[in-house]
Amino acid sequence: MEICTVGGYEEVGKNMTAIKVGDDVFLFDAGLYLPPVIELQADDNFQEYTEKNLREVGALPDDLTLDKLGWRDKVRAIFLSHAHLDHVAALPYLIHRYPNVPILATPFTMGVVDYLFEDAKVELKNKKILMQPNSSYKIKGRSGEYTVEFVHATHSTLQCAFIALHTKEGVVFYALDFKLDKHPVMGEPANYSRFKELSKKGVKVLIVDALYSGTDRRCPSERIARDLVEDALSTVRDKNSALFITTFSSHIARLKSIVEFGKLTKRKIFFIGRSLNKYVTCAQQIKMCPFSRDIQLIKYKNQVDGLLKKVEHNRGDYMIVCTGHQAEPGSILDRIVSDKTPFKFKAGDNIIFSSSVIPVPININARDMMDKKLRKKGVRIQADVHVSGHGSREDLRDLVDLLKPKIIIPAHGSLQQETTMVELAGELGYKFHETVFLSANGKLLKL
Amino acid sequence: MEICTVGGYEEVGKNMTAIKVGDDVFLFDAGLYLPPVIELQADDNFQEYTEKNLREVGALPDDLTLDKLGWRDKVRAIFLSHAHLDHVAALPYLIHRYPNVPILATPFTMGVVDYLFEDAKVELKNKKILMQPNSSYKIKGRSGEYTVEFVHATHSTLQCAFIALHTKEGVVFYALDFKLDKHPVMGEPANYSRFKELSKKGVKVLIVDALYSGTDRRCPSERIARDLVEDALSTVRDKNSALFITTFSSHIARLKSIVEFGKLTKRKIFFIGRSLNKYVTCAQQIKMCPFSRDIQLIKYKNQVDGLLKKVEHNRGDYMIVCTGHQAEPGSILDRIVSDKTPFKFKAGDNIIFSSSVIPVPININARDMMDKKLRKKGVRIQADVHVSGHGSREDLRDLVDLLKPKIIIPAHGSLQQETTMVELAGELGYKFHETVFLSANGKLLKL
Amino acid sequence: MEICTVGGYEEVGKNMTAIKVGDDVFLFDAGLYLPPVIELQADDNFQEYTEKNLREVGALPDDLTLDKLGWRDKVRAIFLSHAHLDHVAALPYLIHRYPNVPILATPFTMGVVDYLFEDAKVELKNKKILMQPNSSYKIKGRSGEYTVEFVHATHSTLQCAFIALHTKEGVVFYALDFKLDKHPVMGEPANYSRFKELSKKGVKVLIVDALYSGTDRRCPSERIARDLVEDALSTVRDKNSALFITTFSSHIARLKSIVEFGKLTKRKIFFIGRSLNKYVTCAQQIKMCPFSRDIQLIKYKNQVDGLLKKVEHNRGDYMIVCTGHQAEPGSILDRIVSDKTPFKFKAGDNIIFSSSVIPVPININARDMMDKKLRKKGVRIQADVHVSGHGSREDLRDLVDLLKPKIIIPAHGSLQQETTMVELAGELGYKFHETVFLSANGKLLKL
Amino acid sequence: MEICTVGGYEEVGKNMTAIKVGDDVFLFDAGLYLPPVIELQADDNFQEYTEKNLREVGALPDDLTLDKLGWRDKVRAIFLSHAHLDHVAALPYLIHRYPNVPILATPFTMGVVDYLFEDAKVELKNKKILMQPNSSYKIKGRSGEYTVEFVHATHSTLQCAFIALHTKEGVVFYALDFKLDKHPVMGEPANYSRFKELSKKGVKVLIVDALYSGTDRRCPSERIARDLVEDALSTVRDKNSALFITTFSSHIARLKSIVEFGKLTKRKIFFIGRSLNKYVTCAQQIKMCPFSRDIQLIKYKNQVDGLLKKVEHNRGDYMIVCTGHQAEPGSILDRIVSDKTPFKFKAGDNIIFSSSVIPVPININARDMMDKKLRKKGVRIQADVHVSGHGSREDLRDLVDLLKPKIIIPAHGSLQQETTMVELAGELGYKFHETVFLSANGKLLKL
Repeated sequence: MEICTVGGYEEVGKNMTAIKVGDDVFLFDAGLYLPPVIELQADDNFQEYTEKNLREVGALPDDLTLDKLGWRDKVRAIFLSHAHLDHVAALPYLIHRYPNVPILATPFTMGVVDYLFEDAKVELKNKKILMQPNSSYKIKGRSGEYTVEFVHATHSTLQCAFIALHTKEGVVFYALDFKLDKHPVMGEPANYSRFKELSKKGVKVLIVDALYSGTDRRCPSERIARDLVEDALSTVRDKNSALFITTFSSHIARLKSIVEFGKLTKRKIFFIGRSLNKYVTCAQQIKMCPFSRDIQLIKYKNQVDGLLKKVEHNRGDYMIVCTGHQAEPGSILDRIVSDKTPFKFKAGDNIIFSSSVIPVPININARDMMDKKLRKKGVRIQADVHVSGHGSREDLRDLVDLLKPKIIIPAHGSLQQETTMVELAGELGYKFHETVFLSANGKLLKL
Repeated sequence: MEICTVGGYEEVGKNMTAIKVGDDVFLFDAGLYLPPVIELQADDNFQEYTEKNLREVGALPDDLTLDKLGWRDKVRAIFLSHAHLDHVAALPYLIHRYPNVPILATPFTMGVVDYLFEDAKVELKNKKILMQPNSSYKIKGRSGEYTVEFVHATHSTLQCAFIALHTKEGVVFYALDFKLDKHPVMGEPANYSRFKELSKKGVKVLIVDALYSGTDRRCPSERIARDLVEDALSTVRDKNSALFITTFSSHIARLKSIVEFGKLTKRKIFFIGRSLNKYVTCAQQIKMCPFSRDIQLIKYKNQVDGLLKKVEHNRGDYMIVCTGHQAEPGSILDRIVSDKTPFKFKAGDNIIFSSSVIPVPININARDMMDKKLRKKGVRIQADVHVSGHGSREDLRDLVDLLKPKIIIPAHGSLQQETTMVELAGELGYKFHETVFLSANGKLLKL
Repeated sequence: MEICTVGGYEEVGKNMTAIKVGDDVFLFDAGLYLPPVIELQADDNFQEYTEKNLREVGALPDDLTLDKLGWRDKVRAIFLSHAHLDHVAALPYLIHRYPNVPILATPFTMGVVDYLFEDAKVELKNKKILMQPNSSYKIKGRSGEYTVEFVHATHSTLQCAFIALHTKEGVVFYALDFKLDKHPVMGEPANYSRFKELSKKGVKVLIVDALYSGTDRRCPSERIARDLVEDALSTVRDKNSALFITTFSSHIARLKSIVEFGKLTKRKIFFIGRSLNKYVTCAQQIKMCPFSRDIQLIKYKNQVDGLLKKVEHNRGDYMIVCTGHQAEPGSILDRIVSDKTPFKFKAGDNIIFSSSVIPVPININARDMMDKKLRKKGVRIQADVHVSGHGSREDLRDLVDLLKPKIIIPAHGSLQQETTMVELAGELGYKFHETVFLSANGKLLKL
Repeated sequence: MEICTVGGYEEVGKNMTAIKVGDDVFLFDAGLYLPPVIELQADDNFQEYTEKNLREVGALPDDLTLDKLGWRDKVRAIFLSHAHLDHVAALPYLIHRYPNVPILATPFTMGVVDYLFEDAKVELKNKKILMQPNSSYKIKGRSGEYTVEFVHATHSTLQCAFIALHTKEGVVFYALDFKLDKHPVMGEPANYSRFKELSKKGVKVLIVDALYSGTDRRCPSERIARDLVEDALSTVRDKNSALFITTFSSHIARLKSIVEFGKLTKRKIFFIGRSLNKYVTCAQQIKMCPFSRDIQLIKYKNQVDGLLKKVEHNRGDYMIVCTGHQAEPGSILDRIVSDKTPFKFKAGDNIIFSSSVIPVPININARDMMDKKLRKKGVRIQADVHVSGHGSREDLRDLVDLLKPKIIIPAHGSLQQETTMVELAGELGYKFHETVFLSANGKLLKL
C-alpha cells in the first residue's frame, strides 16, 4: 500500500489524501486552504476564483503530484468526510481532472457540495453516491474489490464520517475532524462498537486529526455548549435591548440549542446571511433541521437591511443569528458593528459569540478591534460560549486504544501540531519513523 | 463612612476589610495569604505557626493598622463570608486582639472555623452567631443600630454569603468570591430578587471580587463541571486499571458530582486526606453531604497506606478521591506519583484533575513535573475537568447592574487584576477616583 | 500645588499634564493617541483631521477638563518634552484655545512642530521660545516667578528633555520617554550631576514614564543597537541582492548607525518617504545630521517609483532606508511587499527591521502577514535589530534614587502598566495613595 | 553512508550521533541529559551516579542501539565538539564499552573531560588525541582512510569545533552549538573561508543545531554581552553596597568581560564555586585565561563561608562572581539568598544575572522565587545581561548558504523545535523526507 499525503499535512486546510493499493487509487477529501483565499479576495485586481489563481496562492491541495506519480488515471473514487470547506471546497476546481470518478458523501455533505458547485458555476457531472452514516459500499477496482464504510463520527456539523476503506492489505481508517462526544446534541455518539470490530479485523493505518493532540484533556461534549448557550441567553434580562448571536453557519446542532433557548426570550428569531441560508437549507433537505418552524431565513442583502431597520426600532422584539464571529471584514456582523447598516448598537445591547477566536494573528486582531468598538458602545459581550469540535489528547488516545492500528499518520495541522501526536503515539508504544510517521504535503509513504 | 481595606487588595489572600460608621467598626473576613505560609513551612527551622512568624512573612492581614487608626476597640462584630482559608484562617492568630467581639458566619463556615481553631490549638471564646443563608441579624452599636444580612451566594463551597450591612448611611455590600450561577449543583441560584430590593433601598458601596474582571464572559455554571465529570468518568473503560480523581476539598458540590458518576463505575469510593475529612465532616454536620453513604473517609496516614496497598492489588475495585491537584509537595497525590506509597501508577491507570492549574510559576512547575512523571508511566490524564468559582466580567457587570451601587471598590487580586474592574466600571459610567477606587492594603477611604 | 493628569495616564499616547501653583497653570506636552487616528483615516467617509473628529474618537487629550476647572485662562506656558507625535502632534488642533501662551521646546522639537502645523495647514502664532538642552528660562506668573529647566535626556530622537519646573513649593520633574543611556550614539549621557543638585534643592513630585516598569533590567544602550546594525549589515554578502532597512523616522542616531555601516556595503544610500524627509530635514536645520552627505532623500511619490525601478534592475547598487517597520497599511514598505511598486522582492534579497513589533494585535497581525509574504519570496529577514528608547525597572529605580522626589506619579501607559511602577516605588519606600499615586485621565490631584 | 541519531534529537541534551561508512563507525559527542540527572540527585535514596541509574532515568544517550545494529565493535573514534556537559559528560559512564577507541577533542575540551572522569572516579585509559582548532587528523579504518577536521566555531565556551569528517562519500559536517559571531570577545570569528572550501569539495550531510531555528534574526554577538556587562557594572554607584554577579561557569569570554569591567569598580574580585574553579583552571592550563591575575578562586566550602563573612562586613570591597543563575537549589547563590551563609543581602545591594532564565517551568519557578526574595530585601536586580550562544534562523540560513550540503538533519532540540529548521530548509529549496529529515533518538537513516 502507498499513501500520498497530498495536502493538509502542513497546515489546517486543503485536506487531501490518496491511497494506492495495486492499481487502484482512492482520494479522501478535497478541501481549500482558506487564508490565501481571503488574501486573494482582498487583492485589488481580484475578479473570480479560478483553478489557476487558487493554485498560485497555494489554496488548493497540490494534486498535480498525482500526475507525477502516475496515479491520476487510477483514481477509482473520491470520498468526502464531511461538509466543511477545508474538506470539500476544492472540488469544483479539481473535478475536471477526474472525469467519471464517482464521489461518495453523506446526503448533507453532498447537499453542501452541490451548493459549492452552483456558487462556482461549475457543473458536477460525476456520479454521486449518497452514503448514509454507518453504511458501506463496494467498489470494483483493477486490483480487486474494496469496501468503503462511512462510520458515524461526532464533530461540529451534520453527518460527519470516519471513512474506513477495506483493502486486501487491511483497513485504512481516515479520522479527520472528530471528537468522541458521549452526549452530542443531535444524533448518536460515535460508533464505538464498530471501532472494536474494525480493530479485530485489523486496521493497517490510521490517518488522524492531530490538531489538538497537545491539549491534555478530552474535548468537552457539545451538550456543554448547549448549557453555555442556555446560560448566556438566560441572562439577557433587559427586554428593550437588542440581542445578536453569532456562530458557525454549518453547526446545525449549535443552532438548534440557540433557537431552543432563544425561543424562551419570546423574541422573533431571524437567521441572516448567505452562508447560514446555505447550510440550513441543506439540513432541511435531509430533514435534520428541527428548528425550521421557529426561525426565518433572510438571505438577500436588501432584506437584511430592511430587517435591521426594524430591529433598530423594536430592539426587544428580535433575536438575530448571524455570521461574523471571527470579525471577518465584510461579514454581516462587521458591517453592523461598523455602523454600515440601519441598526446601530447601543449601551445595554447584547452580543453572544458562540465561538472562539481562532488563535492566529489575523483573527485575534480583527476580534480585538471589533470588541473595542462594541465595548465603547457599552454592548454586553458574552464570548467563548463554545466548545470545539476537534478532539484533544484523550479523545485521540481513546481512538488509538479502540482501533489499535498498526501505523499512525498524524494529519490536519502544521508539522509542529503533528509532533505532539507523534509524542502521544510514543506513549502508546508506537515508534517514530517505524509505526508513526510525520508526513509532508506531497510526500509518498510506502507501508 | 470610612473603609480601611486591610488586606487582600494587593494579592489573592489575607482578605480583611473594616467599615467604620460613627463609633462602630465592623470587620469582614480574616484570611491567610497562603504562598508565604507554604514557604514558612518549607523552612528548615520551622516548628509551628505563630502570630509572630505569620506576621513576619506577610501571611496575616495587617490589622495592626486598626490600632493606629484607633479602631480596634470599636470593633462590634466580625463577619465571615465563607469557609475558604483566605477568608477565615487568620482568625485563630488574631482573635485574641478582639475579645468579646461576636463572630457571625453560616453554620458550614463556622464548622470549618471550629476545625481551624482546633488545629491551631487555640480556644475560641468569642460569641458565635450562626447565620442561615438569607437571614439577617441586628447589632447594637454606639452610634446606632445596624442590620447585617447574609445573602445567599453561589461560589465553590457550601453556604457562601454576600454580606450586606445596613447602616444609616446606606448599605455596604461585600461581594467577594462569588459567581452568578443559574444552575448550581447544590442549592439555589443567587438571590436576584434581594439584589433588586437592596438596590431600591440604596447601596452606598460595593466591595467586589475583581479577580477575573478581565475575562470577557460569564463564569460557566457548576453544572458544566458536573457534565465534564460525567464525561471524564464515563471514559474509564478499562475495568482493571486504577482510578484516581483529585479536586478541592471544600468543594462539596463537585464532590457530589464525582460520587454520583463514580458510583456508575461500580467501584468502591474512598476519600483520603485530612483536608477532605475536615470539610466533608462539616458538611455532614449541617446535613448537606448527600453522598455520605456512598463513600468511606480515610484520614489517618497508616490507614491510607493500607488502603493504597489494596488498590495496588485490585486496581479495578476502587475509585480514590484525594487532594494534591496542584501537585503540592507532600500532598497525598505527590507522594503517590513519587512512588512513596504502596501504590504505583502504571500504564492505563487513570487520573482526573477536577481542577485547573493556578497560573503562578510554583504551581505550573509542580504540575509540569507531576504530569511528566505520570506520562512516563503511561497514565491517562484528564485535566481541567473544572470550572471556576469566581465570576468573570459579565457576572460582575450583572451584579453592578442589579445593585446599582454609588461606589465600587475592587478587591481580591493584585492591583493589576483590579484595574480591569476599574475599566469595566468605567464602561458602566463610574469615574475612577470618584465613584470607583483602587485601594491598597492598609489604605483608608472616606466616602 | 494641583496637578491635572489630562491625558496619557490610561494609554500610550495623547500625553498632557497640567500643573497649577497659585493662579498659574503650566502645560506639559500635547500629544495625539495614534490608534484612533489610524482608524479614523481608514474610515470610508474620512476627509481630513479636525479638532472635532479627533476629539470624538478620543485622539486628543481632553483639555476641556481645564475649562471645567477654570484653569484654561491661567495657562502661562506650554512645555514640549520631545518631538514624538504622542507628545506634540495634538498642538495644531488645540493651540487656538491658548492664544498668547508661549511654547517652549528644543530647536529640534520646534522644527518638527513647525512641520506639523504646516501639514495641518494651521498657522502657529504663539510665541516660540527655543530651549537649548540643559538651559533654563524664567516665567513670570500671577503668583510668582518660575524657572523652567530643560534637562538633557537620552531617548530615541534628538534633543529630548526632562522638564524641571521650579516653583515656590518645590521642583516638578517631568520625566516621560527616557532611558538612562551611558553610551548614546549621539550626544551625551543624561545629566546625572544635575539630578543630584535638583535632589538637594528638593523635588516635590516626579511624573515618570512607567511603560516598562515591569521589566527587571536596564534598558540596553543605543550603542547595542549600533552593534546590531553593524552585524546585520555585515552579513549582507550577496552583492547582487537588494537591501532594504526600515526604522523609526525620528531616530536620527539609529539612522546614523545605519548609514555608517551601510556605507561599508559600497551601495548608494537612499531614504524614501515623507516622514523620513521631515525628521532628517529638521535634524539638518540644527546641524545634527552627520550623515547628510552620504544619503539622498526622496520624498515625492513619483520619484520613489522611479528609484525603485532602478533598484529592481540594479539590486546590488542600492541600500534603501524606508518606513513601514510596523507593516502599516499604505506605508512604502507595505506597498513594496505587496508588489504595488516597480520593485519586486525575490529570493536572496535582504530586509532588516531595525525596530520591534509593538505588541498589540493590530501590529502583530500586520507584521505577521508581511513576514509571511517576505518568507514566501525567500527574502532574508533580520528582525529586532533594535533596542528600546524607554527605560526599564532599573533605569526607573536609578532616577528615583538620584532625584529622591517626595511624590511619584506614574504616567505613559495603561493603568496596568502603571501599577508596576507603584510596586517599584513600594520597594523604594513610597506608599500607595500617600506618596505614589495612580492617576486617571482628567483626574485632579492636590499635593 | 548510514547515520544513527542516537541522542539529542528529541531534547536538548544527551547528544550523540553515529556515522557509519562501510565497516567504520564514528561517534560524535557523548553528553548527559541534565533534567533527569537533577531529579535523580533530589531523590531521597540517591547515593551516586552509575551507568545503571543514569540509563534508567534516560540521562544517557541510548548507545545500546549501536549493539543492536552491530556497530559497537566498529567504532573507530569518538569526536567531542566542545566542553559542555550535554556533549561530553556521558563519557565516563559509557567509555568502558569502547575500549581502545581514541578520543579526539580540543585541549580545553579534553581538560574538562579529564575533570569529569576525576569527579566520576573513573580512569580514562583510551588514547587522547588533542586537536587544535582548525587542524585535521587522519584515521585509518577498515573501509578506507578518513580525515577528521576540527573547524573553529564560535559559541559560549572555549575551543568549540564544527567537526568535518571527510569520507569517500563526501563530507559529514557536524554543527551543533554554534553561532556565527562576527565579533567574538575571545578568539576569531568562525572560519568562513573554510566553509566555502568544504562546500566546493562537497558536503554530503549537515547535522545542525536547530534549537532557535524559529527565531527570525541573527544571534547577537558576544560583544553585545560585553557592552551589557559594562553598562550593568557601571551603574553600581553605591560604594558601600555588595556586588554579586552570576553567569555560566564555562563561559570564559563572558568572565573576561566581567573581570575587565569589574576591575573598574576597584573591588577585589573573587570567583566562588567548584564549577567555576574547574573551567577556569582548564582555561589556565591552555593559557586562555587572560584574567588569572585579577581574580582569586575559592573552591572549598569552608573558604567560601569565610569570604562571605568578610563581604558581609565590608560589602563595598568585593565583587563576587558565582554560580546559581538558574536559582538551582543548593547552588551558592541559592544558599546566599536563603540566608544560609554568613552574608545576608540587604537594601541597595546588587545582583547581576549575566544569563537568561531557561524557559522551562522548573527554572522559571526557581528564579521567580529567588527574585521575590531578592526584591523583598530591596536588592537591585539586573537580569538578562546576556546573549545566547546558539544561532538563530539567520545564522542557520547563512551556514546552509555557505556549505550547500546535499542533506540536512536538524538536531539539538525537541521535535517541535526541529520542525522550524525543516521549514527554513524548505525556504532554501530542501524537501522534507528527501533532503531534510526529522530524526528521532535511536533512528537509523540511510543516505
